Amino acid sequence: MSTRLIALALALSVTAPRAFAQQVVRYEPGDKDLKYVYATVSPVATLRPGDTLETKTVDAFGNAIQKPGDTMAMVKGDNPLTGPFAIAGAEPGDTLVVKILDLTVDSPRGVGALAPGFGALNTTSYTPMLNANLPERIWFYDIDRAKNQATFHAHDSNFSVNIPMQPFLGCIGVAPAGGEARSSIVPAEFGGNMDAPEVRPGYTLYLPVNAPGALLYIGDGHAAQGDGEVAGTAIEVPLRVRLQVDLIKRKKIAWPRFESESSLMAVGAYRPLDDALRIAFTELVGWIHGDYGLSELDAYELLSKVAKIHLVEMVDPNYVVIAGIDKKYLPRK
Amino acid sequence: MSTRLIALALALSVTAPRAFAQQVVRYEPGDKDLKYVYATVSPVATLRPGDTLETKTVDAFGNAIQKPGDTMAMVKGDNPLTGPFAIAGAEPGDTLVVKILDLTVDSPRGVGALAPGFGALNTTSYTPMLNANLPERIWFYDIDRAKNQATFHAHDSNFSVNIPMQPFLGCIGVAPAGGEARSSIVPAEFGGNMDAPEVRPGYTLYLPVNAPGALLYIGDGHAAQGDGEVAGTAIEVPLRVRLQVDLIKRKKIAWPRFESESSLMAVGAYRPLDDALRIAFTELVGWIHGDYGLSELDAYELLSKVAKIHLVEMVDPNYVVIAGIDKKYLPRK
Amino acid sequence: MSTRLIALALALSVTAPRAFAQQVVRYEPGDKDLKYVYATVSPVATLRPGDTLETKTVDAFGNAIQKPGDTMAMVKGDNPLTGPFAIAGAEPGDTLVVKILDLTVDSPRGVGALAPGFGALNTTSYTPMLNANLPERIWFYDIDRAKNQATFHAHDSNFSVNIPMQPFLGCIGVAPAGGEARSSIVPAEFGGNMDAPEVRPGYTLYLPVNAPGALLYIGDGHAAQGDGEVAGTAIEVPLRVRLQVDLIKRKKIAWPRFESESSLMAVGAYRPLDDALRIAFTELVGWIHGDYGLSELDAYELLSKVAKIHLVEMVDPNYVVIAGIDKKYLPRK
Amino acid sequence: MSTRLIALALALSVTAPRAFAQQVVRYEPGDKDLKYVYATVSPVATLRPGDTLETKTVDAFGNAIQKPGDTMAMVKGDNPLTGPFAIAGAEPGDTLVVKILDLTVDSPRGVGALAPGFGALNTTSYTPMLNANLPERIWFYDIDRAKNQATFHAHDSNFSVNIPMQPFLGCIGVAPAGGEARSSIVPAEFGGNMDAPEVRPGYTLYLPVNAPGALLYIGDGHAAQGDGEVAGTAIEVPLRVRLQVDLIKRKKIAWPRFESESSLMAVGAYRPLDDALRIAFTELVGWIHGDYGLSELDAYELLSKVAKIHLVEMVDPNYVVIAGIDKKYLPRK
Repeated sequence: MSTRLIALALALSVTAPRAFAQQVVRYEPGDKDLKYVYATVSPVATLRPGDTLETKTVDAFGNAIQKPGDTMAMVKGDNPLTGPFAIAGAEPGDTLVVKILDLTVDSPRGVGALAPGFGALNTTSYTPMLNANLPERIWFYDIDRAKNQATFHAHDSNFSVNIPMQPFLGCIGVAPAGGEARSSIVPAEFGGNMDAPEVRPGYTLYLPVNAPGALLYIGDGHAAQGDGEVAGTAIEVPLRVRLQVDLIKRKKIAWPRFESESSLMAVGAYRPLDDALRIAFTELVGWIHGDYGLSELDAYELLSKVAKIHLVEMVDPNYVVIAGIDKKYLPRK
Repeated sequence: MSTRLIALALALSVTAPRAFAQQVVRYEPGDKDLKYVYATVSPVATLRPGDTLETKTVDAFGNAIQKPGDTMAMVKGDNPLTGPFAIAGAEPGDTLVVKILDLTVDSPRGVGALAPGFGALNTTSYTPMLNANLPERIWFYDIDRAKNQATFHAHDSNFSVNIPMQPFLGCIGVAPAGGEARSSIVPAEFGGNMDAPEVRPGYTLYLPVNAPGALLYIGDGHAAQGDGEVAGTAIEVPLRVRLQVDLIKRKKIAWPRFESESSLMAVGAYRPLDDALRIAFTELVGWIHGDYGLSELDAYELLSKVAKIHLVEMVDPNYVVIAGIDKKYLPRK
Repeated sequence: MSTRLIALALALSVTAPRAFAQQVVRYEPGDKDLKYVYATVSPVATLRPGDTLETKTVDAFGNAIQKPGDTMAMVKGDNPLTGPFAIAGAEPGDTLVVKILDLTVDSPRGVGALAPGFGALNTTSYTPMLNANLPERIWFYDIDRAKNQATFHAHDSNFSVNIPMQPFLGCIGVAPAGGEARSSIVPAEFGGNMDAPEVRPGYTLYLPVNAPGALLYIGDGHAAQGDGEVAGTAIEVPLRVRLQVDLIKRKKIAWPRFESESSLMAVGAYRPLDDALRIAFTELVGWIHGDYGLSELDAYELLSKVAKIHLVEMVDPNYVVIAGIDKKYLPRK
Repeated sequence: MSTRLIALALALSVTAPRAFAQQVVRYEPGDKDLKYVYATVSPVATLRPGDTLETKTVDAFGNAIQKPGDTMAMVKGDNPLTGPFAIAGAEPGDTLVVKILDLTVDSPRGVGALAPGFGALNTTSYTPMLNANLPERIWFYDIDRAKNQATFHAHDSNFSVNIPMQPFLGCIGVAPAGGEARSSIVPAEFGGNMDAPEVRPGYTLYLPVNAPGALLYIGDGHAAQGDGEVAGTAIEVPLRVRLQVDLIKRKKIAWPRFESESSLMAVGAYRPLDDALRIAFTELVGWIHGDYGLSELDAYELLSKVAKIHLVEMVDPNYVVIAGIDKKYLPRK
C-alpha cells in the first residue's frame, strides 16, 4: 500500500472508525507479521489517540536462541519488530505520545551474546581492525519473575549472581521522515533501537510524526541492561506489552524526548558520542527555553550545574545519549 | 631542582624524617606558590604514607572573579594548583592512594562562566567553527553553608533556584610520566583536571606514580556540577581540604581509579568520548579480571548488564568517562 | 511493485529481453520521475550487463537556483536522483560494475551555497551548537565549456578566479541492503552521496548488489570540488551522463571500491572520520590480501609506506574517506 | 637552567653575539644529548635569524633496531630529539620560520615496525579493545641512495618492491606554551611529531614561539611514508639535516603552517580527525582572510571548491590533517 493509500485509509478511519478502534486494542503478531525495518508500510492495526495497546514482542534474536548449543547463525534477523500501529489522525508535524503502562518478561530465560562485529570493546563493522575477532559466546540468564531477578552464570568460572530486572523496550520508533526505511538495529531521529531503559512504566516518550498515521513499531525487550550496553546485548527477552498512545497536534519535535513526573530528558543519537551529546543537550536547552522560559544561555549555564547524562548505548550503528534535568530546577511551566 | 635531586631528597626523608613529616601536615599556599602545570618540580611539602594533609585551594579563576563587572580578562591562569606534595617513598610503578576526608566551601559565593573557546555546545579552540562566539558571561551563586546550597540566578529573567552542594576537587593529579608537564586544564593518565565529583569524601582515588615522590597537586574546587559540565564550568569555589595519602608499593596502574564502599570505578580521559569510554571499560574489565577472578569475557558480558557510566565532562582538552560496577555483582575478592 | 515482482520482471527480462534492452539505453527523466531515496522500487529502465546508458541529472537543488535572489527555500528536495536502473540478472551477492564514460556540464552556470545546518566549519544538524547560524548565501559560477573552467566571484570583494572543471557525479548508488531506503544525501555501504571525484571518466566503480536488479541511481553533478567539500557544496551542476554497466556474479563486496588503470581505492563512509578511515583501509588490506596475495600484515606495513588518502567530504550525514594504493607497489595479480 | 636564565642568556647573546653565532652552525649530538620531551630547557646551541644549522638525527628507535632478531624492547625511548636550538631574539608572540634546505638518509637500511598499542587498524593504548594484540613485527628496507629508493620485502611471501625516497623530518617543534613539556611522540600546537612529509626541502614551516629562544627540536627521520602512516611507522631512518631559521617578530600564530612556492597549508592536530580538520581549515580561512583579503565566507566557499587535504597520520596521540590551497586561486597579497 502506498503512502497515499495509507493516508487515505487513515483519513477514512477518523471519520468512520473501524471495529478494531476500541479503547483497548489487542494484537498478537505471527512470525510472518514481524518487521525488520522502520518504514512507511501498511499498519497491522490502527489506534486512536487515548487507546491502549496490548501486544507482545519476541526477543532480539526472534526467540531463536533457546538452549546451550544454539548459535547466532540460527537468528533470522536482528530485533524483529511488532507493528506498525497506525495512530488515527497523526500527520507529519505532530508529536506522538507513548506512555508505557506495563511490561512483563515473557520467558523463563534471557539471553546475552557476544556477536562478532558488535560491541564497544571489540572490533566491529564500523570500527574495524585487523585484530582477530572475539569468539561468539552466548550466556543464558534464568528469569525468576516472582523475585524479579535474572541470574548471570559465568562461563569460565563457577560464579553466579542475581541481577534485579527492570524490563524495557530496546526498540520503539515510527516511520522515518522523507520516505526513508531504517533497519531495526538503528536508533535515530525517529526513535528506533535506542536501547533506552527509560522506555518503561513511569516514563512518557515523545516521537516526531513523519508519515501519516505515525506507524509505531516496538521490539527488542530487555530484562536489564548496563549503561552503554557495552558488549552489545542486554538480557534479551520477549515481553508482554501494555502502552497507551496519544497525539499532540501541530507540535513538531526533531528528536525523541522522555518525560517522567520529575524529569525532562532529550535524546541524541549519532556518532561519535560527542555529537550525540551535543544533539541531546541542544534539544534540552531548546525545550527548557521554549516551554519554561529560561533564555538559552541561562539554560546552558544551569545545565552545566545540574544536568544528568544517561549514556545509554555505544554499540548500535548510532550511539545514544540522554540529557536530563530535574524539573525542580526549572521555572513553573 | 632536578628529578635526580628530588629523588635524593625523598630518599633522605625516608631514612631521616624531617620536622614536617608529622601525622597531620598543614600547608597554606601563597599566591606565588600556586602552580599551573602538573610537572616534576620541588615539592612544597612531603607527606608520609598514612599522613593527613590539611590545606586549601583557590578557585578555578584564582579567586579573581568576585563581583559583577569582573571579567575573564582578570584571570591570571586557569585552575591554579596547590602543591605539589611529595609522598615519601613513592617511586614509579607504585600506586598513590588518596582518601578525601573533608571538603568545605571557603567563600560566600561561587562563580559560573561562559568563556569563549570553552564548552560542549559552543565553538571552541579544539572544535572551532566560523560561527560567531557566544558572549562571555558570568553568573554568581550565593553560597549558604548552613543549608548546604548554592543559588542560581538567571541573567535574562527573574528566576532563581537553589542547588544542593556536593563539593569536590576538579583537579587532582600527580607528575606525568616520561618527564611531561601538563597544563592544569588537562585530565589524562596522571589524573589532573578530571572534574570528577567522585573526588569527594567517601571515595578513594588511585593514581599511578610516575616520578619519585609522586608529587600530588590539587585545585579547582566545585560546589556542584552537572554531568558533562557542558557550559565549561561548575559552581567554582575555593575549598578547605582534608585528605589522607597512602601508597601501594609495586602495583602499577595505567589510569586513575576510584573505589567506594560499594563500587569500583575506572577512569578514561581522551577524545572523542568513544575512546574515553573504551579506556575506562577496558581498565574496568582488567581490574575485575585481575582482582576478582572473572575471565575478561565474563566481565565484559556482566558489565553489559549492570555497568554504570558517569560521563563527567566533555569540555576540557580531554573528555572524561568513568565506568563503574557495584561490588555486589562481583565474586568475593 | 514489490521486491518479489521486480525480481520476477527482471528474471523474465533475462530470458525474453524487452525492446529497451539495447546496447545503448537512453533515458530522460521528467520532474516527477526524480527520486529522493535509494530504495527498492520499480526501475525506470533495465540495462543488461555491457549496456551503455545515456541520461542526464539535474543539479543538487533540482535546478531550482537559477539567478541572484533565488533562495534555498525554493529547493524541493536535496540531490534529486535519476533512476533507478535495473541491471538484468543482478542478484544480492553480486558486484555491480559501473564505468563512467563521459560527463558533460549541462548548464551555463554552477551554484555553490552556504546552507544553515550543513558544513564542516559551521554548526549543523548533527554537530549542533548554541552559536548563531551562519547566514544562507549563494554563489554563482560562470561555466565556460570551451575553456573547461568555472569562475568564482567573491561576494564581499571584487575578486574573481577561474577554476578548472573536472565533472563528476556526487551521487551514485544502489538499493541498500535489508530493505532499507536511504535519503539521497547519505553515503553508505550502498554508495550514495559519496561526493567522490573518482566518479568520473577513467575510473571504474564497484558497488555491492543488495536487491534484485541492483537498482542504480545517479545525481548531484559537480563541476569541481575541493577535498572535504568543507562548506557543504561543490560547483553544483546538471550533467549529461554516459556510463556502462557490468556485473560480476557471486562476488560480494561490503563497501564501494574504485579502480583506475594505475590504482586500487577502497571507500569508507561513517562518522567520525577515524572510523571512515578504518573501514576504507581494512577494506583495502582485504582487497590486496584477497586478490594480490600479500599477507594482511605485509599489506598493512606496505600501506603505511605508500598509501594515498583522499578525504572526500566531511559534510554529509556520513563522512567519506578513500584509501588507495598505486598498483605498481603490488605483486602481479 | 630556568626559563628566566635562558631568557637572560638569549638577551645577552643578542647584544653580544657568542663565538658559536656563525652563519653556519654545526652540531653533532651524543647519545646523552638526545631529548624525549619538547620542553623549556637549556639549548644545545643558539642560532641567529638567518643562520643555517647542520646537524643529524637518529631514527625513531634511537638507531637501536639494526638487524633481524632485534626487538622493540631494545628501544630506549621513542623519537629521540636533537636539540633544542635557541633562536636569538625569539620571544613568545613571534613566529619561527624554518626552511628545510637538505635532508640525506644516513644509513644503508630503514626500519618499519608493528608495535603493539600503535596503529590505525589495530587496538591501541587510546583505542583499546579486548581483542588479542597483533604480533610485534619488524621490516627492514634496503636503502639505495644512488637510485633514491628503499626496498620493501614482504615477510610472508617472496615479494619485494622499490619505493622512491622523499626524506622528511617526522618531528620538528618548539617548546610548548604555558610551561608544558610534551612527549616526542605528540604533535600539537607547538609542532612536534607531526609526521608531515611537508617537512622537506622546498617547504617553509612556521611555528609559534612560546618560550624565550623558541627552542627548536628535530628528529624522527622518514625516508618515505604513506598518507595516514597507518601501521604506525614510516621507513624510519637517521638523517643528516641542513635547515635555515628565521624570525617574524610580533606575529602570533596558533598552529603550525607550511608554505611552498605554490601553496599555503595549515596544520590541525587533535582527535578525532573531525576536529583536526576543523582546526586546519579555520586556520586556513583565517590566513586567507588576514593576508589575502577575502572575507571569511568567501574563503570558506572557495576552499569548498579547490582545497587540498593531506591526511598525514592517524596513529600518534593526536591526529594530523593539513589543509591547503594553491596560491593561484588567491588574490595577490
